Amino acid sequence: MSDVKHMKWWGWGVDGVAFHHENKPGFAPFVKKNLGLDLKKTKGEPPTFADIDVPSSRAAESFVLLLAGIVGDEHVETDDMSRVVHTFGKSIRDLIRVRTSAFPRAVDVVVYPANEAEVRLIVDAVVASDAVLIPFGGGSNIAGSLEPLAGEERTVVSLDLGRLNRVIELDADSSLARIQAGAQGPDLEAELNEAGWTLGHFPDSFTHSTVGGWVATRSSGMQSDKFGDIADIAKGLRVVRPGGVLVLRPLPSTSTGPSVREMILGSEGRLGVITEVTVQIHRIPAKREILAYLYPTWDAGLAAMREISESDATPSITRVSDGNETLFSFATSKKSKGFSALATKGLGVFLKAKGWDTEKMCLSFVGNEGGEELVATNQKIIAGIVKKHGGITVGKGPGVLYDQKKFDTPYIRDWFLDWGGSADVSETAAPWSKLPELYRNVIASANHAFDEIGVKGWIMAHLSHSYTSGACLYFTFAYLDTGDAITNYDVVKSAIQQAFIDAGGTLSHHHGVGLEHAPWMEQDISTEGVKVMRGLFGAVDPGRHFNPGKVLLDE
Amino acid sequence: MSDVKHMKWWGWGVDGVAFHHENKPGFAPFVKKNLGLDLKKTKGEPPTFADIDVPSSRAAESFVLLLAGIVGDEHVETDDMSRVVHTFGKSIRDLIRVRTSAFPRAVDVVVYPANEAEVRLIVDAVVASDAVLIPFGGGSNIAGSLEPLAGEERTVVSLDLGRLNRVIELDADSSLARIQAGAQGPDLEAELNEAGWTLGHFPDSFTHSTVGGWVATRSSGMQSDKFGDIADIAKGLRVVRPGGVLVLRPLPSTSTGPSVREMILGSEGRLGVITEVTVQIHRIPAKREILAYLYPTWDAGLAAMREISESDATPSITRVSDGNETLFSFATSKKSKGFSALATKGLGVFLKAKGWDTEKMCLSFVGNEGGEELVATNQKIIAGIVKKHGGITVGKGPGVLYDQKKFDTPYIRDWFLDWGGSADVSETAAPWSKLPELYRNVIASANHAFDEIGVKGWIMAHLSHSYTSGACLYFTFAYLDTGDAITNYDVVKSAIQQAFIDAGGTLSHHHGVGLEHAPWMEQDISTEGVKVMRGLFGAVDPGRHFNPGKVLLDE
Repeated sequence: MSDVKHMKWWGWGVDGVAFHHENKPGFAPFVKKNLGLDLKKTKGEPPTFADIDVPSSRAAESFVLLLAGIVGDEHVETDDMSRVVHTFGKSIRDLIRVRTSAFPRAVDVVVYPANEAEVRLIVDAVVASDAVLIPFGGGSNIAGSLEPLAGEERTVVSLDLGRLNRVIELDADSSLARIQAGAQGPDLEAELNEAGWTLGHFPDSFTHSTVGGWVATRSSGMQSDKFGDIADIAKGLRVVRPGGVLVLRPLPSTSTGPSVREMILGSEGRLGVITEVTVQIHRIPAKREILAYLYPTWDAGLAAMREISESDATPSITRVSDGNETLFSFATSKKSKGFSALATKGLGVFLKAKGWDTEKMCLSFVGNEGGEELVATNQKIIAGIVKKHGGITVGKGPGVLYDQKKFDTPYIRDWFLDWGGSADVSETAAPWSKLPELYRNVIASANHAFDEIGVKGWIMAHLSHSYTSGACLYFTFAYLDTGDAITNYDVVKSAIQQAFIDAGGTLSHHHGVGLEHAPWMEQDISTEGVKVMRGLFGAVDPGRHFNPGKVLLDE
Repeated sequence: MSDVKHMKWWGWGVDGVAFHHENKPGFAPFVKKNLGLDLKKTKGEPPTFADIDVPSSRAAESFVLLLAGIVGDEHVETDDMSRVVHTFGKSIRDLIRVRTSAFPRAVDVVVYPANEAEVRLIVDAVVASDAVLIPFGGGSNIAGSLEPLAGEERTVVSLDLGRLNRVIELDADSSLARIQAGAQGPDLEAELNEAGWTLGHFPDSFTHSTVGGWVATRSSGMQSDKFGDIADIAKGLRVVRPGGVLVLRPLPSTSTGPSVREMILGSEGRLGVITEVTVQIHRIPAKREILAYLYPTWDAGLAAMREISESDATPSITRVSDGNETLFSFATSKKSKGFSALATKGLGVFLKAKGWDTEKMCLSFVGNEGGEELVATNQKIIAGIVKKHGGITVGKGPGVLYDQKKFDTPYIRDWFLDWGGSADVSETAAPWSKLPELYRNVIASANHAFDEIGVKGWIMAHLSHSYTSGACLYFTFAYLDTGDAITNYDVVKSAIQQAFIDAGGTLSHHHGVGLEHAPWMEQDISTEGVKVMRGLFGAVDPGRHFNPGKVLLDE
């Protein structure tokens, strides 16, 4: 049995950590009013693994022995638990299916190589045996990038990179670190911190995702405004392919034709197995501070974020929640902490006296990091822009809390599933000029979808990841479901995705494509764009051994 | 006859502009000492076009008529001058060949479409007629990206984008401009400036290159530290392909699989014809200032640049010349202007008193642009770093002159050719940790090559385009040649390119690949990287109609 740790088979994160509402006085009334959920009733529980019906492994014994010959017996697994853990990611679709034993196809065998040499042998064995290989990092994907295709007749191998988890080399002069693909966020960040460095890449999935997974899905972290998306951060790559290793040395920039580096980025396993990433790192900044602001309206918040992106300020985090998400933040606050200062009647009275509708005000966080002077200069510029757009500065307290709690949100979804609820996220990016209408259209489309499936739905959003030309909008939606959960989810999710595309946004800013978003690829990158990408996949993997059917659905 | 303007058929830039040494008192002694060139002798002249022997067009009359039916008679050319202008770029190899009637293969017909619809018809006609199409922008390429393959049996069409030259749309909220691919630097920049914007992209070729060409070759401008390389700047693209248009809408960032945008970038015509680019633009900054600095040694200058790149300062230009290039700058100064302040005996005495070897001191320029406060803050940080590394601040004068003269250098090469000299440039990028050794090895390799061909050679370099992880080193070399100019050039150029690769640098930071750098592709992006790229080219253009053999040589 491998000692690589995984998330709960039925949900997010580690055993023993879960969302609790009891210490949040505003939460019960909030879900009662907005979702019709009565917390006085009795909550359900996730199933036990004994209740789950797992399809048998189809791997031939000889093939399993072949893999064991490469990595050792103890690093090959065919037991049900291991195969279930490696079959899905953590989308709501995945969680619903795993709880209901709905496995269109489970992986057949899980293999844990110790090093790149073993990865090469596995890759060659997979091709020689006409099997299928799906690389597995932290398993946090929510776009359906990890599951085998329903009709896959061949043996499906999940290659878990969990043992390739070290920081190999640190080039202090160049601020570069060579890191093995299976290194998880907290581990690599701790190792870098110890030497005085940070990667600065903190996606929502940070606690359970890997640097290889970030590259394979084009991840973006919460501090991307300063540190860049993973596409900016990943300077060098090693990718195991049949018969050889693709090596891209770390280069600050290069003009060597179409970028192979940018082909590997987002390839979700289709071009080979990423074994190593050389990343841009940064000295831990002298100062790091996140300030909270409030805006009277979403449009004001949006306009302020746009102006900050165009200004001389260089923040690391720019984030503003819409009215609904702001209400949700207040509802999840503990009595004694955090947003209590905002939620006090005193502030409410003050803001109402200013003419604000406190049901519609928008909470914003802007983070700055660097030398004392940079942080102060940025905060001054930003304060001026906030004021110009009618906002007020709230201070440091909520920012500290945001920083502490920023990775906890996925736990709420598991809790909500126990209550019979469906909750998920969908995100996009678009030019600034298109964001106001995109936002309105997505909200309208989601509400129309809620009506269609007959639920009292809730949708909320925030802007994050600002660029000079636009930003990411991140939507979270939830409803109590009494019908077919997957069918209903499809209605809502599709409505939101289509609204993204129709308003000039992309199908995903940083969640990747997988199976979930693949139907919108042609609308996003055009028919000719799909042809070019399909040409690449076909030429590079003619035998369809590497995570086939992801990103682009089979024709 | 088309009214699209082109550079001189035999050299850089426009008629009537040329380099003159007479008003530069230090120049004659400089070239005498370092190149053995005696300017008291009589200079040669470029040939007249009547002296040039141009291969006949192989285009069938029916094919020319087909093209004329698409664009109109006056926009199809088969005359010798037009075909010569479109056969080569402006590398030293190109200039030597054009002066000596050495055309391995000339283009057969030049066509000037008026719009994207006409480009589509031309592309379809080329494929239907089994011809070859080479897109042509400003013709400034120095990597052999424009010439037909020597053994090409099919009709070769040069598609000149010169009539697609407008700024189509300006999205002020998103700081985006849609620009037709054939728009040249000065024209599009003037149009943007008028509306209060700048693109901020100023490659050395700026005055004679196009936005489509920048994208096709992965250009980088002198102010890339702030504004990014063209790969960062180009947000949206339209590319005509057989049967359709590949459309990538402008998006700030996206996670839609392998980046098709980054496949078009650097594709040098192999994936289709770029007709439109949506670029990131910026409001013209309130202040822009370039300050000059001097360092006692190259290593000190390099170390200072590295530290600036890691600091909170956000300059637009970071540049430092080595000792030789600094001497060259002094030698090309007019008596009454510019560097005269540096070259005065007073400064020399002062620096020698400080213990400097003034033959080895290094001139540096750092530019800042933005609000008054940003510029002041940056300059303060930079001044501290300069001082720490033993440098001194010289002031604004030389920076103003640098800004005025920055696009003039290529004219010197034509002048030098008239004297029987060969001069060219070669540039790379590498991580900071590798730059000191890379520099030393390149200089040693070039000097060894000079010995090999028996010339008194000169090589000089500067660092420009800083990134957090590394920078570009740009080398210029020159010698009087009495042997076979092409053979000798190959010896020197190859030695430098191989030294780049061996020291961890790329074959080119921003000059592209073409035919010139293609032999190093496998060493740069690895055998598997080449396989992936070759797979892409093969799948997307199986008939080899689009600039075949460039970037990757035919197998």
